[in-house]
Amino acid sequence: MSLSSQEAFRIEYDTFGELKVPSDKYYGAQTVRSTMNFKIGGVSERMPVQVIRAFGILKRAAAEVNQDYGLDPKIAKAIVQAANEVAEGKLNDHFPLVVWQTGSGTQTNMNVNEVISNRAIEIMGGTLGSKKPVHPNDHVNKSQSSNDTFPTAMHIAAAQEVNEVLLPGLKKLQNALEGKSKEFSQIIKIGRTHTQDAVPLTLGQEFSGYVQQIKYGVARIESTMPRVYQLAAGGTAVGTGLNTRIGFAEKVAAKVAELTGLPFVTAPNKFEALAAHDALVELSGAMNTVACSLMKIANDIRFLGSGPRSGLGELILPENEPGSSIMPGKVNPTQCEAVTMVAAQVMGNHVAVTVGGSNGHFELNVFKPMMIKNVLNSARLLGDVCVSFTDNCVVGIQANTDRINKLMNESLMLVTALNPHIGYDKAAKIAKTAHKEGTTLKEAAIKLGFLTSDQFDQWVKPKDMLGPQ
Amino acid sequence: MSLSSQEAFRIEYDTFGELKVPSDKYYGAQTVRSTMNFKIGGVSERMPVQVIRAFGILKRAAAEVNQDYGLDPKIAKAIVQAANEVAEGKLNDHFPLVVWQTGSGTQTNMNVNEVISNRAIEIMGGTLGSKKPVHPNDHVNKSQSSNDTFPTAMHIAAAQEVNEVLLPGLKKLQNALEGKSKEFSQIIKIGRTHTQDAVPLTLGQEFSGYVQQIKYGVARIESTMPRVYQLAAGGTAVGTGLNTRIGFAEKVAAKVAELTGLPFVTAPNKFEALAAHDALVELSGAMNTVACSLMKIANDIRFLGSGPRSGLGELILPENEPGSSIMPGKVNPTQCEAVTMVAAQVMGNHVAVTVGGSNGHFELNVFKPMMIKNVLNSARLLGDVCVSFTDNCVVGIQANTDRINKLMNESLMLVTALNPHIGYDKAAKIAKTAHKEGTTLKEAAIKLGFLTSDQFDQWVKPKDMLGPQ
Amino acid sequence: MSLSSQEAFRIEYDTFGELKVPSDKYYGAQTVRSTMNFKIGGVSERMPVQVIRAFGILKRAAAEVNQDYGLDPKIAKAIVQAANEVAEGKLNDHFPLVVWQTGSGTQTNMNVNEVISNRAIEIMGGTLGSKKPVHPNDHVNKSQSSNDTFPTAMHIAAAQEVNEVLLPGLKKLQNALEGKSKEFSQIIKIGRTHTQDAVPLTLGQEFSGYVQQIKYGVARIESTMPRVYQLAAGGTAVGTGLNTRIGFAEKVAAKVAELTGLPFVTAPNKFEALAAHDALVELSGAMNTVACSLMKIANDIRFLGSGPRSGLGELILPENEPGSSIMPGKVNPTQCEAVTMVAAQVMGNHVAVTVGGSNGHFELNVFKPMMIKNVLNSARLLGDVCVSFTDNCVVGIQANTDRINKLMNESLMLVTALNPHIGYDKAAKIAKTAHKEGTTLKEAAIKLGFLTSDQFDQWVKPKDMLGPQ
Amino acid sequence: MSLSSQEAFRIEYDTFGELKVPSDKYYGAQTVRSTMNFKIGGVSERMPVQVIRAFGILKRAAAEVNQDYGLDPKIAKAIVQAANEVAEGKLNDHFPLVVWQTGSGTQTNMNVNEVISNRAIEIMGGTLGSKKPVHPNDHVNKSQSSNDTFPTAMHIAAAQEVNEVLLPGLKKLQNALEGKSKEFSQIIKIGRTHTQDAVPLTLGQEFSGYVQQIKYGVARIESTMPRVYQLAAGGTAVGTGLNTRIGFAEKVAAKVAELTGLPFVTAPNKFEALAAHDALVELSGAMNTVACSLMKIANDIRFLGSGPRSGLGELILPENEPGSSIMPGKVNPTQCEAVTMVAAQVMGNHVAVTVGGSNGHFELNVFKPMMIKNVLNSARLLGDVCVSFTDNCVVGIQANTDRINKLMNESLMLVTALNPHIGYDKAAKIAKTAHKEGTTLKEAAIKLGFLTSDQFDQWVKPKDMLGPQ
Repeated sequence: MSLSSQEAFRIEYDTFGELKVPSDKYYGAQTVRSTMNFKIGGVSERMPVQVIRAFGILKRAAAEVNQDYGLDPKIAKAIVQAANEVAEGKLNDHFPLVVWQTGSGTQTNMNVNEVISNRAIEIMGGTLGSKKPVHPNDHVNKSQSSNDTFPTAMHIAAAQEVNEVLLPGLKKLQNALEGKSKEFSQIIKIGRTHTQDAVPLTLGQEFSGYVQQIKYGVARIESTMPRVYQLAAGGTAVGTGLNTRIGFAEKVAAKVAELTGLPFVTAPNKFEALAAHDALVELSGAMNTVACSLMKIANDIRFLGSGPRSGLGELILPENEPGSSIMPGKVNPTQCEAVTMVAAQVMGNHVAVTVGGSNGHFELNVFKPMMIKNVLNSARLLGDVCVSFTDNCVVGIQANTDRINKLMNESLMLVTALNPHIGYDKAAKIAKTAHKEGTTLKEAAIKLGFLTSDQFDQWVKPKDMLGPQ
Repeated sequence: MSLSSQEAFRIEYDTFGELKVPSDKYYGAQTVRSTMNFKIGGVSERMPVQVIRAFGILKRAAAEVNQDYGLDPKIAKAIVQAANEVAEGKLNDHFPLVVWQTGSGTQTNMNVNEVISNRAIEIMGGTLGSKKPVHPNDHVNKSQSSNDTFPTAMHIAAAQEVNEVLLPGLKKLQNALEGKSKEFSQIIKIGRTHTQDAVPLTLGQEFSGYVQQIKYGVARIESTMPRVYQLAAGGTAVGTGLNTRIGFAEKVAAKVAELTGLPFVTAPNKFEALAAHDALVELSGAMNTVACSLMKIANDIRFLGSGPRSGLGELILPENEPGSSIMPGKVNPTQCEAVTMVAAQVMGNHVAVTVGGSNGHFELNVFKPMMIKNVLNSARLLGDVCVSFTDNCVVGIQANTDRINKLMNESLMLVTALNPHIGYDKAAKIAKTAHKEGTTLKEAAIKLGFLTSDQFDQWVKPKDMLGPQ
Repeated sequence: MSLSSQEAFRIEYDTFGELKVPSDKYYGAQTVRSTMNFKIGGVSERMPVQVIRAFGILKRAAAEVNQDYGLDPKIAKAIVQAANEVAEGKLNDHFPLVVWQTGSGTQTNMNVNEVISNRAIEIMGGTLGSKKPVHPNDHVNKSQSSNDTFPTAMHIAAAQEVNEVLLPGLKKLQNALEGKSKEFSQIIKIGRTHTQDAVPLTLGQEFSGYVQQIKYGVARIESTMPRVYQLAAGGTAVGTGLNTRIGFAEKVAAKVAELTGLPFVTAPNKFEALAAHDALVELSGAMNTVACSLMKIANDIRFLGSGPRSGLGELILPENEPGSSIMPGKVNPTQCEAVTMVAAQVMGNHVAVTVGGSNGHFELNVFKPMMIKNVLNSARLLGDVCVSFTDNCVVGIQANTDRINKLMNESLMLVTALNPHIGYDKAAKIAKTAHKEGTTLKEAAIKLGFLTSDQFDQWVKPKDMLGPQ
Repeated sequence: MSLSSQEAFRIEYDTFGELKVPSDKYYGAQTVRSTMNFKIGGVSERMPVQVIRAFGILKRAAAEVNQDYGLDPKIAKAIVQAANEVAEGKLNDHFPLVVWQTGSGTQTNMNVNEVISNRAIEIMGGTLGSKKPVHPNDHVNKSQSSNDTFPTAMHIAAAQEVNEVLLPGLKKLQNALEGKSKEFSQIIKIGRTHTQDAVPLTLGQEFSGYVQQIKYGVARIESTMPRVYQLAAGGTAVGTGLNTRIGFAEKVAAKVAELTGLPFVTAPNKFEALAAHDALVELSGAMNTVACSLMKIANDIRFLGSGPRSGLGELILPENEPGSSIMPGKVNPTQCEAVTMVAAQVMGNHVAVTVGGSNGHFELNVFKPMMIKNVLNSARLLGDVCVSFTDNCVVGIQANTDRINKLMNESLMLVTALNPHIGYDKAAKIAKTAHKEGTTLKEAAIKLGFLTSDQFDQWVKPKDMLGPQ
């Protein structure tokens, strides 16, 4: 080995011994050890950066509070600066660990502690790896345990992703659908139940159902957030708060709230906050409901937009790209497909979160990294796909009014308007006769002698079938 | 066939033709037709009685409101009386249809219409099957469609099961766990993280985590109910309210609220209420979270109660029955097993509900019977198993204090209390030395020269490790 | 209490004490105790009768083998007779226990032991409840434990349901679909990809895909059966076979094979057979795949049959019943709806089975009753719904050839046939022009000057587009 | 914009118009368009490289077969060279598209076509983006459609991941467990059922159950592969094989088999192969079963290794890293935690695959990218975690024989050996008495007068309780 490559490493140690650490990295021995022991899944399976950034926020908050309780202000200041860099994503390259590590996320917490301590040491002019003057455990992790910091970072990351990506995406989609609902409010169309022709409604009414689903989706997500805003910090190893000071938990939560602008509070029961992650299962459940809504809406839109000549053809969807590598000129509802694929993924993620959430034991749930990975993935994908769907599909949807009018006028189910006048049984005979003989309802009705032409015209008016009388 | 058995049938008809109906049943042709067309799963797969009873409530409410809008009071009165009998479960034998029928529940709605009309006909002195003076569609189903009545019955049934079985069960369990948490508040025990020995907490603290989980479980269920209390009635076939009168929807919801004592309101958007059942997916998601909580708690209790001689042995669980057909004297945590089996079932039911909820098309979701079956099953099983678990296990749990004390005093993780005094690295050496040499922490600490005997006694006090300082 | 009602009970005892048992029941104290301790879910949640019947087969087999190893032939004979009655379903009323009991099924095993011993005692002229001359544990349960008998009954019940209900149902559906595929082999229709118009295929080809799915479904189920045919009997309490005799396991499996006509063998590793139920998770996974196939097929058929006037309308589905309580004359694809609801249920059941299967601990999985309930439910529902779907829908499907021809001839995607002649880019221009201008492909092609009328007629022939050249 | 930055792009076009493409990339307009239309999830959500590499193999095979059918050999040669580079992973940077695109994977197929055509153009000395002399559709995609190539790449990628990662991982774990089973074959220990003390077995027997689970896991995976080895190639747009030549499908499959060394064949029914992905649902189901097995085994090992002083303590697990950031000296079963987290993920992935697999419509399933992403993720994680678990945990497991002996000798369940001698009821009394009075079984047995000291010693021998007699 040449001199230069020898210089590319420094020696750090943990309680298990010495390890070579790349010179250009801030992480230390425990991080390196984890990369050796958990070769699972590769780079794409790294701990989500949202968790790393949330840790930066938490470590900064903890350092500031620790200073209140006596931590050397110079050390605290350096930790704060280093933690800020982590929070801002500037040190992402120093977090090589995968999700598939210890189930408490201890190794990622130590990765954070190591990076911050070494960076703080650097700021203070010390030697990387010396643990002086900033020790990863004694200073950066002061009053903390992986067992409370990791779930705190989970909640911070989840809350941020929900507020920055998921809810804005849903609201954008809601707005776009509302716009379409209004735009289409005067277009009367055939309804379909059981996929079969039914009585009419307006296209605006049809879209209003989608609006309601997304609106409730927002409400569902929001109704779970109070429990996500509760932070485990201050519980340390088993929830008792051993090695913390009275008030530490509350102050850290307040700091995190201040730094993020989100209403975080300290969890009222730290034992629950470490041993269970029901709050994330609950959030995941709300996202699962949103996934069902989106699957329904996207399915409707692609079927209503099917064609151009052999489908239902009531909607004209934006053409965004060539649809086929073999069929020239084909245009496909690709945004709907992205939406429904995301919906399926979110349903799957939810089961992973559920299984992990149900398998905590005693004072600690050890499915933490897997759970937060899936929660963040669901939030991000749902939020992103709502934006993509809105921008590239929903806002450009046009009604094919010729087609809509044609289908509506041919419908046999307009016969339903006759129920109050001639009763269900006679109305059924009219519909069946028209269907069998391929005639209009009116022709069949008159032929059967159940009513006059005038009565038919008076009673069967699609415009009068759009609401109660 | 003898004369008498020929007489055991009457002839009824639907729009498809004549059918033989058992003389002693109130149902009619459409019900019989469904039994012929859907031979799926047998008796155990019948539509849940909760749905039937909810239909009774709804049909009564609709008849009363229809009378306000002009329905002949005599007919209305007879319908009300018959519907009441359905609501009270008196006519359960007249509902033979299985869940696996049309996905709108139309056949069950018609089953209800037929039973109520025939029973009302009987009350009014008419002939069963004559549809006079009470017609199943024109009178009993007046201003209604299966498409709005079935989801209305789904919501009534779900809300009642939640309020009558699920929430009382959860609250009962919460109370019992709270009692135990207080009872055990002075018992200091070893904590366990990663299933491994950790720092101490009280047994009361450990149980307080369970209390919090169940308490939040109640909150989770309750937070979903506003949307379950919204009724589709008045939407009729596609959500427009065709063939209803203005005000009908609101009045029916108010009647149902009055009859049930639950805060039902009319759904603000009937298109959503027919085409999607997100509210049930959401409720199911909350129950899924509760299932995770229960799985965790029951697992803990059976592991903490494992033994009697080769397990953790910290809890003594009530002995309720012989545990083994081959191992004499064996006692098993059977209530925990029922709880965890129910939890697994609820997780599975949730996926069924999710898949059904995501697959609605256009104006109607046609997974209705399957969805409500699973929601009711989850609510009932969770509620019942909470009661069983409470009565037959939780209230009788005793702490095995000898065992608890012994394990706590031997623990190596008490070393954590030394962190603030001698630092993490030295503390680690003490623990590792004691573990390796099989000695006490104190012996190892003194041998290593890190502190004095007095310092050890002063710093390592389990009682001082139960909270922040 | 009157004398007569006092006489309606007899006193039996278990190791926990005395209990009153209804005089007209064969079950004993442990069964009664279970009904008291597990009031969960009610009658509809009883242990599936298939499990009870499987236990009858097993207990008969065990008694016969025990006789070979020295059990008094008179006792053995009486047990065999009583067990046979259980196997034949004659004593179903004597099995009141619910699924939600101990997770080993011990209480159901004891229920079986009690019923058989009391019935055998009766046969031999003894007194019910006396345990003489036939003891439930020492004779009926001889060489057995709940821990090996319950999984044995699970496998017997599952294998029988698969062979008697599931596979016949699938094969019946496969045959019906094959018939339709042949019937429709000459009908050329528009294909649809992304729900959008695509190049043509025959309706027979389309159905051949469904045939293949079901055919593979049968293969999938069958490929899991070798492991389901392995029986745990002979493993007793923990898999070692304590208190059995060498050869017992093999002989019991052979007897069960003889009695059922199915190729049961003894499990090569009894520890796995008690502690895990991977074989049932695997079988459930195969059923989950079949559920996906059925969901796809039923969705296709209802969409292709949508209409009658505003849908795709290529298929005419049988009209089986009135479709709507409000829309007269409506006909719905109700069989498809039953199929898709069952599919969703099977997917949910599969998750329940998965969660249960993953949570075994040490020598015993204690999710046994829940797992087998779900497996049997999936098998029964899938088998039944295949028969119902076949009889009431598939065999009656007709092609709407007028509609099919019309859609096919109007299609723009026939342009794909031009790719080899004029290239993808020019072909795309033709399709886009025709679409934009509402003309035929031929008109657009000629207008654009890419080819002649004759060339178009020669190159664009739907009949030539049905396979490779 | 400076000249140099202008030069950093070239202009390419698709049927929708012109687009700027980075000069240093081989991809073209359709790829760029997709990156604009599908901003979903970011870099970590890119199409798995295994799919890209599989496409390289397929495109090479297709080019070679196309040459047989008349493709210009110079063009074919250049395509083969470029495709090879894709297959070898050399061009991974040229595939920026995410999974969340069109559900047919068309855009990734076009990405591949663009990269290969431009690279081939480069090889032949042409101008990037000119589509000459190698056209992405007309040459690289010749005789192909996204609809058959993407599922072909899915199957190739899945089969390779199974054979290269999953099966080797499982077999390695199986071997290691077999080694431990043999090593521990003479160590008699207490069994545990219901988590409670039960009759003895050897530690080797206990591990033999794990071996059997993994062995069957291998068999389960392998039993699904025949259907994964079937390739859709040759089906083109809807399964008919339009624009291919007779024999093309078979030859391509043979080439792929040759290039991969895996037994690929052409799918017997291309309609099924495009419209459904049951084969992947099936494979995912087998991996789901393996996940259950691993969850069980890893749970057992961490519980058996729990302690060091307050757990079961029968196993000593390797110490791989510091276990806690706050508790010095703590060692945790971190490998078991990675295993169980992976298991939960695989169960979730399976539901995503199931939902996607069930939602195909007509001639095409459009959940393709999502499905293969999850299947590949499950295969990779399971394979990797088996290796990690084996190397870092299983091979280093030691039996804590002192502890094992102590627990075994104290056990009350040894009483089971008395059943054949004194009957179940008396044996139960002995066990209950010993438990209540804290004595040994022998003391209780003699005190109760059921047997002599000699009889006890003769009948109760753990060594004789390990198998049938």
